[in-house]
Parts: sequence; C-alpha cells; structure tokens
Amino acid sequence: MPLKTSRTTVHRLPKRAHYDFDTITDILDSGFICHLGFVSDGQPYVIPTGYGRDGDVLYVHGSAVSRTLKAVAGGIPVCVTVTHLDGLVLARSGFHSSMNYRSAVILGSAEPVLDDKLRALEIISEQILPGRWAELRPTTRKELNATTVLKLPITEASAKIRTGPPADDDEDYALPIWGGVVPLALIAGKPEHDGKGVPMPAPKYLAKYRKK
Amino acid sequence: MPLKTSRTTVHRLPKRAHYDFDTITDILDSGFICHLGFVSDGQPYVIPTGYGRDGDVLYVHGSAVSRTLKAVAGGIPVCVTVTHLDGLVLARSGFHSSMNYRSAVILGSAEPVLDDKLRALEIISEQILPGRWAELRPTTRKELNATTVLKLPITEASAKIRTGPPADDDEDYALPIWGGVVPLALIAGKPEHDGKGVPMPAPKYLAKYRKK
Repeated sequence: MPLKTSRTTVHRLPKRAHYDFDTITDILDSGFICHLGFVSDGQPYVIPTGYGRDGDVLYVHGSAVSRTLKAVAGGIPVCVTVTHLDGLVLARSGFHSSMNYRSAVILGSAEPVLDDKLRALEIISEQILPGRWAELRPTTRKELNATTVLKLPITEASAKIRTGPPADDDEDYALPIWGGVVPLALIAGKPEHDGKGVPMPAPKYLAKYRKK
Repeated sequence: MPLKTSRTTVHRLPKRAHYDFDTITDILDSGFICHLGFVSDGQPYVIPTGYGRDGDVLYVHGSAVSRTLKAVAGGIPVCVTVTHLDGLVLARSGFHSSMNYRSAVILGSAEPVLDDKLRALEIISEQILPGRWAELRPTTRKELNATTVLKLPITEASAKIRTGPPADDDEDYALPIWGGVVPLALIAGKPEHDGKGVPMPAPKYLAKYRKK
C-alpha cells in the first residue's frame, strides 16, 4: 500500500520517518486517544477523541465534527494523529534536546459510519479496554442515533519515531552538563470503584491494565 | 478577555466547557506537548510539538509548518490543542463510558518569531524542564537560524474538563457490572545518563520531575 505520498512525506528529520503499514499500526494499536484535525471556514480545529483500528480502517469518535459533517456532502478531509511520549531527551545544548516519541499521522477523507455503527463502537471500546464491551449493558437505538462515528481508511500515512540517548555535538560531551533520557509513560493507577450499584471486585482485565 | 467566541463555544457536552483565562492556562502549564493543527491546500495537518507559555502568549516549536509559513505572507490560522488524559471512566453502558481529561484549545493566527527567538526557545525549554536552560551550552546563531518558533496570542480559546466517576443511567446501577475509574497519568521514570562525557549525578531538578 503506498502510504507515503507527497503529503505524508516527512521533510523535517526524515531519518525518523517510517511509511510501512506495520510500523504505523503498531503505533495506533499502542493507544486509544487521537487528535482529530478538520477544517471549518478555513480554520483548523484539533480535538482529542477516542479511536479504534480494524484492519486498514480507523474508526474515530466524531461527535465534535458533527456540525461540520452536516455542512458538507459525503466525507471531509481530516488528519488523525496519535502520539506516544516516551521520554525527555536531555542533550547538552538546547538545539539537540528533544523527546523520544512515536507518532502516526493518517490523512484522508472521513465519512460518517451509517450501516454498522454498533460494530464500530465495539472496535473503539475494545481498543480502549479489551474485554469490556461484552460485559456492558447493550447500546440502545436512541444512544446509537446520538453518536457520530467517523471511518477513515489507512491509505495515506506516516510515522515518526525517536528513540535513544541525545545526539550531542562531539565537543559538547566535554562540558560539565548531565546528558541522558528521562523515561515517560502513561501509567494506570489502581482502579477506583464508584461505590454505587452492585459491590464486586475489579474485573481481571483492569488489574492487568497498563497501556502505554 | 473574551476567550469565548462563536468558534470556541463548545456545543458537545457544554457543561464540561470553561472559558476563563486561569483555567485554560492551568491546563497549558501542566504540559509541554501540544498538537498543532494547520491547513495546507485544504488539507488539515496535526503535528505534535513542544510549547511554552509566557503570559498571554504561546510559543510553539514550529519547524513542521515552515514550508506552509513560507507559502503565505504573515500568519497562518492554527489550532493548538493540549490534552491531559487523567483516567478511563468505566460506566455500565458504552454510551456513558468516557475519559477523565483536561484539554485546552487555542485558535488564532500564528506568526513566526523573528526578534527574540532565543527568549522564545528559553520559554519552551523552561516549560518542559524548569532550571535546565541556564545549564545548557549556549545556542549558536546557526542553530537559531535553523529553528522556527511560532507565536500565538491566547485570545480565543476554550477548555474542556471531565472529572469524577461515571454518570450511569439510574437503572443501570442494578446491573452486575463494575463501574468506576482507572486513573491514568504520564509518569517519569528514573533518569538514564547516556554514559558519555563527564560522569556526574543527575541534577536535582530531574529527581523531582513529575509532570502530569
């Protein structure tokens, strides 16, 4: 699949760029929150929202773009960006200071899901917390109608990844400045029951929950 | 300051919206990575990048938009979004399942910083890691020329915040489904020296590093 196009070619630090499907979907599958970009009256908007991947299709919770969707027929150009922050890279100069990260950028035309919205919601839910969906009270027709889900094919995309220690200028290593990495990760704490309803222990899938 | 405009008015779940300067800057000051949205040939792009706040001005590391900037005279419309993910909100239905989060959305016209780029870079550096900038090898003229920093006034903005347990439908509390919150936070691990240059202990400001 030609995920690399003139629009997804990374010009800034191109050696950090990747265009293969597996690298991009690995990044997508390691998260569940994206930043969805769309344009309305020439103004870009960027909204955080949940997503789920199924093969080469990305489903995005799209209620924030409902008004924009109504204003156009069919799909709208969007950009979906998923970013994992893995560390602060502390070089001995500001210029080489950086972050370790994995990010994926998907461009394309997003359309509202009309036919199988329930399945799309299941995919988003399972992306966030595998095993949860089957336990939930079933979704009603009214709830389904009140929810907008967008569908975006993963056909034009790029990833950008930085790992490892700082890359200082040779002469800067002689300076009395600490250089290295501060690892960062999104860590789950202990599940907190809301104290309502039926008392029960936290489900097993929560105890294991560590999403980076 | 009228941060609330027709463009920043939150329509989806408006009771989660805030428009006061302090709430918005609290969210900005709790982070250092934003998602920067801009438009090129009608296509939105969303790029993760570092930022720093100084009063009512946001400075954004903008090398990714350099090409777009060159194509236009003066500023370009941007959206800067900062999101902190605070927890998974596990309701007893999919419809009421949610996230706890704090997000800020700043709209406006971003211009390249020309006059005092060094100070802008210091503000971005200090946002990421207070105390670090003064220790670093000074930035050279060549490095400064190779860096694009954007300036965006915080004059049109909104925040959206969700906290607390799930809000289930009354009758769903009777269901044998675990309901509550899984807290999430971006946590710093132990600093890892790169093993090069001058051996020294990690600076004190790293040991205290806990950015949420």
